[in-house]
Amino acid sequence: MISRNTTTLLKRLSPTLRIAMPNSHLYAHHGSPFKRTESTQSLISLNRNPFKITVIGSGNWGTTIAKVVAENTQHFPHLFQKDVNMWVFQEKIDGENLTDIINTKHQNVKYLPNIDLPENLIANPDLLDSIKGADILVFNVPHQFLPKIVESLKGQVKPWVRAISCLKGFEVGKKGVQLLSSYITDELGIQCGALSGANLAPEVAKEHWSETTVAYQLPKDYKGEGLDVDHKVLKALFHRPYFHVNVIDDVAGISIAGALKNVVALGCGFVEGLGWGNNASAAIQRIGLGEIIKFGQTFFPESRVQTYYQESAGVADLITTCSGGRNVKVAKHMAKTKKNAFEAEKELLNGQSAQGIITCKEVHEWLYTCEMTDEFPLFEVVYQIVYNNFPMEGLPEMIEELGPIEE
Amino acid sequence: MISRNTTTLLKRLSPTLRIAMPNSHLYAHHGSPFKRTESTQSLISLNRNPFKITVIGSGNWGTTIAKVVAENTQHFPHLFQKDVNMWVFQEKIDGENLTDIINTKHQNVKYLPNIDLPENLIANPDLLDSIKGADILVFNVPHQFLPKIVESLKGQVKPWVRAISCLKGFEVGKKGVQLLSSYITDELGIQCGALSGANLAPEVAKEHWSETTVAYQLPKDYKGEGLDVDHKVLKALFHRPYFHVNVIDDVAGISIAGALKNVVALGCGFVEGLGWGNNASAAIQRIGLGEIIKFGQTFFPESRVQTYYQESAGVADLITTCSGGRNVKVAKHMAKTKKNAFEAEKELLNGQSAQGIITCKEVHEWLYTCEMTDEFPLFEVVYQIVYNNFPMEGLPEMIEELGPIEE
Repeated sequence: MISRNTTTLLKRLSPTLRIAMPNSHLYAHHGSPFKRTESTQSLISLNRNPFKITVIGSGNWGTTIAKVVAENTQHFPHLFQKDVNMWVFQEKIDGENLTDIINTKHQNVKYLPNIDLPENLIANPDLLDSIKGADILVFNVPHQFLPKIVESLKGQVKPWVRAISCLKGFEVGKKGVQLLSSYITDELGIQCGALSGANLAPEVAKEHWSETTVAYQLPKDYKGEGLDVDHKVLKALFHRPYFHVNVIDDVAGISIAGALKNVVALGCGFVEGLGWGNNASAAIQRIGLGEIIKFGQTFFPESRVQTYYQESAGVADLITTCSGGRNVKVAKHMAKTKKNAFEAEKELLNGQSAQGIITCKEVHEWLYTCEMTDEFPLFEVVYQIVYNNFPMEGLPEMIEELGPIEE
Repeated sequence: MISRNTTTLLKRLSPTLRIAMPNSHLYAHHGSPFKRTESTQSLISLNRNPFKITVIGSGNWGTTIAKVVAENTQHFPHLFQKDVNMWVFQEKIDGENLTDIINTKHQNVKYLPNIDLPENLIANPDLLDSIKGADILVFNVPHQFLPKIVESLKGQVKPWVRAISCLKGFEVGKKGVQLLSSYITDELGIQCGALSGANLAPEVAKEHWSETTVAYQLPKDYKGEGLDVDHKVLKALFHRPYFHVNVIDDVAGISIAGALKNVVALGCGFVEGLGWGNNASAAIQRIGLGEIIKFGQTFFPESRVQTYYQESAGVADLITTCSGGRNVKVAKHMAKTKKNAFEAEKELLNGQSAQGIITCKEVHEWLYTCEMTDEFPLFEVVYQIVYNNFPMEGLPEMIEELGPIEE
């Protein structure tokens, strides 16, 4: 039994199914078979020059997003200028500039090897030159480099420029929690949204199907449809057949989920390392999701509960992160070897850090200031395990004692 | 920085941390260190004889739950009669009755080998004899045996008896969706709740920490606190230091989640088998959670959205099920070998079946009757892949085309 819509769709797709996951690069240059999305987006008409895009950052996630964007600027010439600039922190590879390699070989051999990049993606080592004439800035650099980059851009960006931050997370200080998008807005005076989702970069780069969430609020000086960046424009900019985008308003929600999931992943690593199995890991994720929601509702009451359990940037990113990655690895190693977090990081991560270790401390300090540590038992226990050698076997009891999520 | 409550707790726990996960059998007979729970439950006083419990079913999950229950009846003598009956479908093991083995060796050598059972758990091969004098029946048999058992019990159960169903799921016919707990209520005339959670039986049997959800609504003839089964009594009956219980009202919510997760798990198996990776599996789980919520809201509007994203029986059970188990295995095998669902089942499951294959058909037929297949694109695509050989590579496009979850 098949309903009418389904029948039509099946007819259209079979027997010559034109879908090509995960080899969808086949149609990257020949038009997408995803008719509905395409036609919806074709309906957007601009009453101004097409938008010029610059991606700031060229690590594996930065380059992957730049690839996505440059594919779409080819696809929607009425909306976007074809050439996309990508600011690259200059490095020499076998004596050659990384930017020159990217611009001739069309691969980022250092950070995203073996992935072909569109020829309209132009690497540029000069930050200020790369943003010349840009209407949309896509920030995608490691968290710790953001302040320096923002400092360099101060006074150089026109106020009508719009931005999307692909950095996950927030900064927590004694004054409170600041979203990275708000930081960009405050420092540069431009409207900034965020992109976050269950997106392990290598899988997206290979065009394996995934989803993401883009969050953006129209600014007070929004110039109107066809004149300014809005949800439709952002969908056209980021959505690909292999990278399904949902655009929402809730910048705070997706940023909070993106940061706190790393703390939850540490908890999953502990119980996995102790050999407690799938039930225990699922329990940690459930409790973690609850605390993420509570954190959001407490400190960003404007964020929507649905964002956490319904968006790719919420529950899906939590699941992906808790099924592997740096935080899980470090925490498992701690459980198995009884080494502390910093020894485990040193042994496993070759000088890099597991973000959850930094975040759980920031979160603890902020909750302590608010006298609310007891209301976030999982976050608190993870902090106590990492920083005060609390025995991780006590995790279930601590969670039970400190208090259930809803009371 | 540690808050006051945390300090007290840490003092109490360290350095002689009395927790014993996963070896918590150490205190199973010596009193739990979980003071708060224990003292809360000790406050319940009965104005009647202690409740007598019978567990109906002795597979691996049945025996595991019987073990949990029998530990608690030892622990709360003022609430429960110590001896717990477990109805066992009689089998001969090397010429000996399975019930005799259980009652002398205190192990269910066939379905839960190497796990010691409490001596107050009494195996009984006679169904009617096993329920004599019982105040609470815990149903825990394979779905397909339920009708016959219920038939045998008809007219034999006093109306004031209460029941909990540990069977996952519901029956969907052309008339609609019936919860198994409602089926028990309708057939036997007794109030019935449900128990469901992220509970792989072998892990719970080994006393590795996990969580579960019990749902129960007070009946119209509820006799009052101290006289009848209520949420506190059920918490005392099922909660263990290694098995954390949350008791809620929403029987429909946990039953729906318990059934539909198996359909989602098939979807995860497909994308895993295609080699699409963690992002894709997380996307399927996200979409699946959304469709589970929508299904619940549509057909059981009294069920609460929070149950799905906040309870062990909701999001946690979904995550556990999608990280392994029969449904994922069969679907992966289909993707890798291009065999159909029934061939894959035959090759992998040795005559058993993957529940999602039955459920996705029942769900499709019901949604088709309601002309709503298009509103549940994941459920529909899984059905089309299993029953109509729809190419699974088309899954993302079908989901995109049939319509987003929220519009």
